[in-house]
Amino acid sequence: MKTHAQTDTAQAIKYVYSFGGGRAEGDRSMKSLLGGKGANLAEMSAIGLPVPPGCTISTEACQYYSSEGHTWPTGLEEQIEEAIVRLEADMQAGLGDPDNPLLVSVRSGAAVSMPGMMDTVLNLGMNDEVAEGLARRTGNVRFAYDAYRRFIDMFGDVVVGVPHEHFEEAIEALKKERGVENDVDLSGDDLKVLVDRYKAIYRQNTSHMFPEDPREQLRFAVNAVFSSWDAERAVKYRRINKISGLLGTAVNVQAMVYGNMGQDSGTGVCFTRNPSTGEHILYGEFLVNAQGEDVVAGIRTPEDISRMADHFPDAYKELLEVTDGLEKHYQNMQDIEFTVQDNRLFILQTRNGKRTGTAAVTIAVDMVQEGLVDKKTAVRDLVEPNHLNQVLHPQFEDMDAYKSDVIGQGLPASPGAAVGQVVFSADEAEAWKADGKRVVLVRIETSPEDVGGMDAAEGILTSRGGMTSHAAVVARGWGKPCVAGCSEIVINYREKSFTNGKATFQEGDWLSINGTTGEVISGKQPLVEPKMGGAFGQFMEWADEFRTMKVRTNADAPADAAKAIEFGAEGIGLCRTEHMFFEGGRIQAVREMILAESEEDRRKALAKLLPYQKEDFLGIFRAMAGKPVTVRLLDPPLHEFLPHDETGQKEMADSLGISLEDVKAKVAFLHEFNPMLGHRGCRLGITYPEITEMQTHAILEAAVELSEEGVEVLPEIMVPLIGTLEEFANQKAVIDQAAADVFAAKGASVDYLVGTMIEVPRAALVADEIAQEADFFSFGTNDLTQMGFGYSRDDAGKFLPYYVDYKILSDDPFQSLDQRGIGQLVQIGTERGRATRSDLKVGICGEHGGEPSSIGFCYRIGLDYVSCSPFRVPIARLAAAQEALNDKGKRMRELLGQSVYDELDLSVRVVNTLKVLNVESIGDLVRLKEWELLKSRSFGRKSLQELVNALNERGLHLGMDGEERA
Amino acid sequence: MKTHAQTDTAQAIKYVYSFGGGRAEGDRSMKSLLGGKGANLAEMSAIGLPVPPGCTISTEACQYYSSEGHTWPTGLEEQIEEAIVRLEADMQAGLGDPDNPLLVSVRSGAAVSMPGMMDTVLNLGMNDEVAEGLARRTGNVRFAYDAYRRFIDMFGDVVVGVPHEHFEEAIEALKKERGVENDVDLSGDDLKVLVDRYKAIYRQNTSHMFPEDPREQLRFAVNAVFSSWDAERAVKYRRINKISGLLGTAVNVQAMVYGNMGQDSGTGVCFTRNPSTGEHILYGEFLVNAQGEDVVAGIRTPEDISRMADHFPDAYKELLEVTDGLEKHYQNMQDIEFTVQDNRLFILQTRNGKRTGTAAVTIAVDMVQEGLVDKKTAVRDLVEPNHLNQVLHPQFEDMDAYKSDVIGQGLPASPGAAVGQVVFSADEAEAWKADGKRVVLVRIETSPEDVGGMDAAEGILTSRGGMTSHAAVVARGWGKPCVAGCSEIVINYREKSFTNGKATFQEGDWLSINGTTGEVISGKQPLVEPKMGGAFGQFMEWADEFRTMKVRTNADAPADAAKAIEFGAEGIGLCRTEHMFFEGGRIQAVREMILAESEEDRRKALAKLLPYQKEDFLGIFRAMAGKPVTVRLLDPPLHEFLPHDETGQKEMADSLGISLEDVKAKVAFLHEFNPMLGHRGCRLGITYPEITEMQTHAILEAAVELSEEGVEVLPEIMVPLIGTLEEFANQKAVIDQAAADVFAAKGASVDYLVGTMIEVPRAALVADEIAQEADFFSFGTNDLTQMGFGYSRDDAGKFLPYYVDYKILSDDPFQSLDQRGIGQLVQIGTERGRATRSDLKVGICGEHGGEPSSIGFCYRIGLDYVSCSPFRVPIARLAAAQEALNDKGKRMRELLGQSVYDELDLSVRVVNTLKVLNVESIGDLVRLKEWELLKSRSFGRKSLQELVNALNERGLHLGMDGEERA
Repeated sequence: MKTHAQTDTAQAIKYVYSFGGGRAEGDRSMKSLLGGKGANLAEMSAIGLPVPPGCTISTEACQYYSSEGHTWPTGLEEQIEEAIVRLEADMQAGLGDPDNPLLVSVRSGAAVSMPGMMDTVLNLGMNDEVAEGLARRTGNVRFAYDAYRRFIDMFGDVVVGVPHEHFEEAIEALKKERGVENDVDLSGDDLKVLVDRYKAIYRQNTSHMFPEDPREQLRFAVNAVFSSWDAERAVKYRRINKISGLLGTAVNVQAMVYGNMGQDSGTGVCFTRNPSTGEHILYGEFLVNAQGEDVVAGIRTPEDISRMADHFPDAYKELLEVTDGLEKHYQNMQDIEFTVQDNRLFILQTRNGKRTGTAAVTIAVDMVQEGLVDKKTAVRDLVEPNHLNQVLHPQFEDMDAYKSDVIGQGLPASPGAAVGQVVFSADEAEAWKADGKRVVLVRIETSPEDVGGMDAAEGILTSRGGMTSHAAVVARGWGKPCVAGCSEIVINYREKSFTNGKATFQEGDWLSINGTTGEVISGKQPLVEPKMGGAFGQFMEWADEFRTMKVRTNADAPADAAKAIEFGAEGIGLCRTEHMFFEGGRIQAVREMILAESEEDRRKALAKLLPYQKEDFLGIFRAMAGKPVTVRLLDPPLHEFLPHDETGQKEMADSLGISLEDVKAKVAFLHEFNPMLGHRGCRLGITYPEITEMQTHAILEAAVELSEEGVEVLPEIMVPLIGTLEEFANQKAVIDQAAADVFAAKGASVDYLVGTMIEVPRAALVADEIAQEADFFSFGTNDLTQMGFGYSRDDAGKFLPYYVDYKILSDDPFQSLDQRGIGQLVQIGTERGRATRSDLKVGICGEHGGEPSSIGFCYRIGLDYVSCSPFRVPIARLAAAQEALNDKGKRMRELLGQSVYDELDLSVRVVNTLKVLNVESIGDLVRLKEWELLKSRSFGRKSLQELVNALNERGLHLGMDGEERA
Repeated sequence: MKTHAQTDTAQAIKYVYSFGGGRAEGDRSMKSLLGGKGANLAEMSAIGLPVPPGCTISTEACQYYSSEGHTWPTGLEEQIEEAIVRLEADMQAGLGDPDNPLLVSVRSGAAVSMPGMMDTVLNLGMNDEVAEGLARRTGNVRFAYDAYRRFIDMFGDVVVGVPHEHFEEAIEALKKERGVENDVDLSGDDLKVLVDRYKAIYRQNTSHMFPEDPREQLRFAVNAVFSSWDAERAVKYRRINKISGLLGTAVNVQAMVYGNMGQDSGTGVCFTRNPSTGEHILYGEFLVNAQGEDVVAGIRTPEDISRMADHFPDAYKELLEVTDGLEKHYQNMQDIEFTVQDNRLFILQTRNGKRTGTAAVTIAVDMVQEGLVDKKTAVRDLVEPNHLNQVLHPQFEDMDAYKSDVIGQGLPASPGAAVGQVVFSADEAEAWKADGKRVVLVRIETSPEDVGGMDAAEGILTSRGGMTSHAAVVARGWGKPCVAGCSEIVINYREKSFTNGKATFQEGDWLSINGTTGEVISGKQPLVEPKMGGAFGQFMEWADEFRTMKVRTNADAPADAAKAIEFGAEGIGLCRTEHMFFEGGRIQAVREMILAESEEDRRKALAKLLPYQKEDFLGIFRAMAGKPVTVRLLDPPLHEFLPHDETGQKEMADSLGISLEDVKAKVAFLHEFNPMLGHRGCRLGITYPEITEMQTHAILEAAVELSEEGVEVLPEIMVPLIGTLEEFANQKAVIDQAAADVFAAKGASVDYLVGTMIEVPRAALVADEIAQEADFFSFGTNDLTQMGFGYSRDDAGKFLPYYVDYKILSDDPFQSLDQRGIGQLVQIGTERGRATRSDLKVGICGEHGGEPSSIGFCYRIGLDYVSCSPFRVPIARLAAAQEALNDKGKRMRELLGQSVYDELDLSVRVVNTLKVLNVESIGDLVRLKEWELLKSRSFGRKSLQELVNALNERGLHLGMDGEERA
């Protein structure tokens, strides 16, 4: 680029770009020249939106200012003046004209949003005469002088550096003098006094009079913006965030508009559709002769938006046209702030509107049917995956109404609203339910013995345990609301009560819990059931058209499997067999097996379990006919099946006809210091191969029998907790032998796969070895997170909340997969496994399989499927569809996977980093900490520029920032 | 290579290579042609060793046989005959000559040792006449016919495939007929009968008569060897082990020699030096007119080797010459088997002799001083690191003598021998010791409260716990013998007894334990104290000349530190501060701190601890003057400091003046399900920064004070259990602030580093981030192994022994670092950390820091130091020196680190794999499973041959197998 010193003919360079009145000299492609904000204002004007007019001073002007000793380039002053004159004409007002004053805002705006630069000066153009004139014109002295004193404060603070505290002290002093509490209690005359005092403060701190000339004010402000580009904070921010190559900041000067100019003025907010129901009707409210803050303050009651026709018929008509246009342009429901000044409509802001899940789905389907958007856009942009939670579960009628009744905050462990009477034990829950009552089960924590009571309850509240505690996992599986780990409450089982330190709740008291937010609310809060007709089904059908990654479910029982099929599950990714061990007579046989002292005795006990297990599998396979079912072999340590209290141990001793001492001795023998890292998973199957044999028999006998009935069964046997190839080979041999025995006995066979969970960090690292024997991998990201971070999910409650609060972790890694760390293990495991066996089926079955950002990660690293609890299946389907629709990322991945790789000689790590981080623009790359690291070592041998050029040559069109996503 | 079909002139190809009589037609470089065994026999002959003569038929002959329809190439038969004639002349005997029979062995031997091929046929050349002649010549009918019947069995089995069981059945039947128990009870005449029956079996199974013609026997045997090359097992073995490019197997035909040919014959074994003491004198024994097995059987008492001069003066003289030559050639003390046949000496086998640690060091130093080897060879080859254990600890006088008294086998947790009277509590140990008694402390497991008694005991025996249990770690630190986890014994504290199920031991009974082998022995076994004078010091001095990696020690107290300095430690790599918390009044203050409900109360309690901690550091820093000291901040979960039994809790309540209920409530509150993954390490310092502050104060106040006294202090503060950059940054900020406070208060400062332990798997994966803030890394491989494998070291005893026994794991990963899996984390962490900060200091402080193979790994991946318990410092010094001397590996690494990398376009993973696996030959590469994996994917784009060529061009001279190491 030529420097300005070489080309200083006034005509040669255009520094100032006007916008407004349905026209603009720039557009959104000019971000590097006009900054992000300026390009956006130009674009909005260009599409005909009545934004308040103004102009943008380009980043080239800033660059000149910085490099040429804080001087303006030739022509800049004239161009600004021309733009101001045009602006005055458009607004039919004049800068400094007391009868019809034009006031403007001045804002900075670089190509990349950047804290540390000058922010905003409002009401520029104000002086004594203008304030008087404005008071006259609006009939509102207070308004005029409030605007004036705010301007002096802002100008003083951000433009010339007078500390804001000085102005604060002055207003506090005045309020004391007047004996009033709040700023709003000061009268117009009081504010006149304040303006004088502010001017004195300004003078004392600057040795100059406050500049009364609006054009001088503007010059000051523009220079302040230019200078802020090189301020220490801004420079440091650019350095830390590796932002380079920008010219400077642009300056945006825009007319201020007021809704309180009289009865022909007003202000309001509206949604283009009803954000609660999605109904296609302009929804909003407005106030005549008011400013935006009056609407928010709630002093006057706003009128319904439809009444605007009575007050400002022309402006209303224009608003209707504009809102239709906005939806077409932004392809989304809009949340709009507007002002009417002297019957003229100005759009101050428009953004995608927040909405309920029901509204989101309705709007998405309606907009497609209205031809406003295509299905792809509807699926990708109009519904957030978590919106679907609201569609699937009951909700509270009014979440604002109950705020004062909230008595505690726990983890949002399983979404939805539940209301019932408090009970403290599973047995009571079942008994009360049998009496026709609705209950909320309140427990310190739950255990497998509580499942009956959990099923009977409307919802579950625990005072201990995390997002993957027993209560949370079971509740999510059933779609039952659950608030877990509410540490604010203390439960007293003996007294059958709990307290939050202020109020005490007894058995039978009504309680409400919000599993979506984690709130615990006293009383019987009103509920609404989800009402979702065909729109939900229609929307999900569209989502599936774009989805490429499969979605399976975690289900341990036929009923869960059937539910999941309703929600669109394409198989079972995790069927835990141990949950089957607790019911009825089974636990007795399990305990006999545990107490057995010889293999023979163990086999006898296992033989009793076989028919139960087989029955379970018959039911599940039947429900999942034609779809794959991954069955995980026994995982938990055996002591989990023994009672831990003396009463239970006595019962067990009696029912097995042995001494209490023997039971206690076994419990003591099986005790583990760290059961998570103990004798569990495949370690059980290796030391007791007869357990693996029995389970294989149950699975494959069921499969063969159904197969003979004509039911298609696709069993996948999954060995848990593998850490070495040798472990897997050991168990695979046992399984294959048992399978051969079953098939020989039955005289018929079925195809089956044998694979493993990758949940031990070492397994991911040696996945290439394990894949020599394994047919499939399923990442158990719960355990992988526990072991990879060294966090026991049962104990991390003592520090994880602190970590999240203090930003040591951005999210709870048990909720949202830690992509940077644990994600590496998933990626390494996948890559190495597939390097050995290119057709290796790879999925994820941890709790993360139902969390949208984690699902995105799984898609990007190329997993075949995610598996999640039945109620999260629709969420996962949508999240997977959206990820597949993320075309830019996909294109980038395709390119990186092909020729660019070889040609640029990028290292594997660079490629994978780029693939996974979903880099879509140079801005993304520039901000990527990882990138600098990569460049600094032998991993990445080519420069950013070469990479970008190569990708763009292939048609990727990487922008300067994430603009293609805007 | 041209095929043989094209070049079948008899003279053109030499297929048979003779050896023997101090000459050979081949040498050890001809492995691909002569096979490993043949090349070695040729080499031994070439250096003048009187090996029994013979010839090798080349692999090219085998290749012809395989490819040309099982025919011999022209000339092969003639060449074999020529070689046999030469052999007959040399041995002055004839194949099939009854008066002077020559018998030969026939063995296969490819370039790579390979199971599945034909093994060995002995005594070939035997027939009815020869057997008669041999009986006559030796005067031993039994010997002759035993040799004959064995030959028929072997020949039938391995050459023509008659199942060995048939012969077994025949001998069993004959023993029954004769009413005898053992084979040796059959007379010569019985064996004559057996030979006839064997021949009948041969005929029944082959439809042929047994071949009586020795040359026919030889032809059969050679063909059998050739055919075995293409046998299914051999082909499969080559496929699995990726062995390709070999021509075939060679065939070795070698004269049999016999020491039982009369009074001019004999057999013996000898060492070139005394293997117990190292004294330089021929050491061994022999028997006249006997075979090797007679020496082993112990029926006759052998004579001392020096008496050979009386029986066979010439052969003895030759033996003395040969043994000297062997030491010169192999540069090591040799263990030799020899036979004298008719006054002629034959060396049957020579190999490096096993020796005690004392002997090893003595021999190494002597051989250097005798000019036989240089220092480099002595350090690299003559002493195994673990030999030094014996030099540093008392040993049992005779480990064979006590075998019948062994009552149990545990883990060899801390080496050395201990003898004492059994006590069952730490208090008793101290009391008995005070009475002047020697005791062995027997506990189920030990805890920090037992350290006084452990110190008082001669040795420690536990029935539970692994190699890194409390008992094991503490004992190793002190160099005190310990056998841990001896699960065969059951301890009854009430009765003060323990039993192994057969015998019961009471308090006061004498017990011996061998911490080197894990044996528990009844009674008071005689001990020898280590006697090691200047040789040890001299040897270690030489080792240090070659060592490049530093060796530090793990020490928590001034006395340990001083001990470690004696052993050559170059600093402290791990000073655990929590061990300091248990003594005397400290535990009281620790418990006050834990019970504190407010930060203020916690600070008060911590203030009481500060002077204690400071005192500790003053002592340690003083002992380590001028050497770096890495201090780890508090690591264990707080509940470890609370008493877990009611008595202890009562005492604590009383001494703190609070209620027992409060103590119990705190214990319950702090209870963790998986304390290993709980609220510990930096998680404590983050939630209670005042702990980090106090410890920083103690460390740096001590450092500043000593520094002012002129003592050089190099403190390195280590934050434990870091998993994320944010955690580290949090703690570093606390430390830096506390340091600034100390320096300001003292008016003086010292340099200090702040680094972290990498012990959480995630930390290794994000080491690039953590290194942005950390000055050093120390790998905590104990925890890294626990979390990487998902093995709790306290619980893994239920399956780890099984895993090792059944080869699911090759070693206990807590003893020997799992290089394939956990090692990847160490390597990744090191590489990524150094990519961010090239001068990052990296070490290891887990238990693996004292284990030789793990030390080798640490060296190869470029760590700066290893740290281990004081008594293992010499072992680590030697292991590190040997690794540095491994020139071939080093050269390979250098080459791979430089030009070859770029030129061959090898991926990072290929390079690192080769670096770390210490590949030294093509054979190593060929056998490397990893290699095929790498080749099969994009990681390695060049072929093995290209890599080998490139490396050899650079002077590496990669051989076909590990021959350079022989």
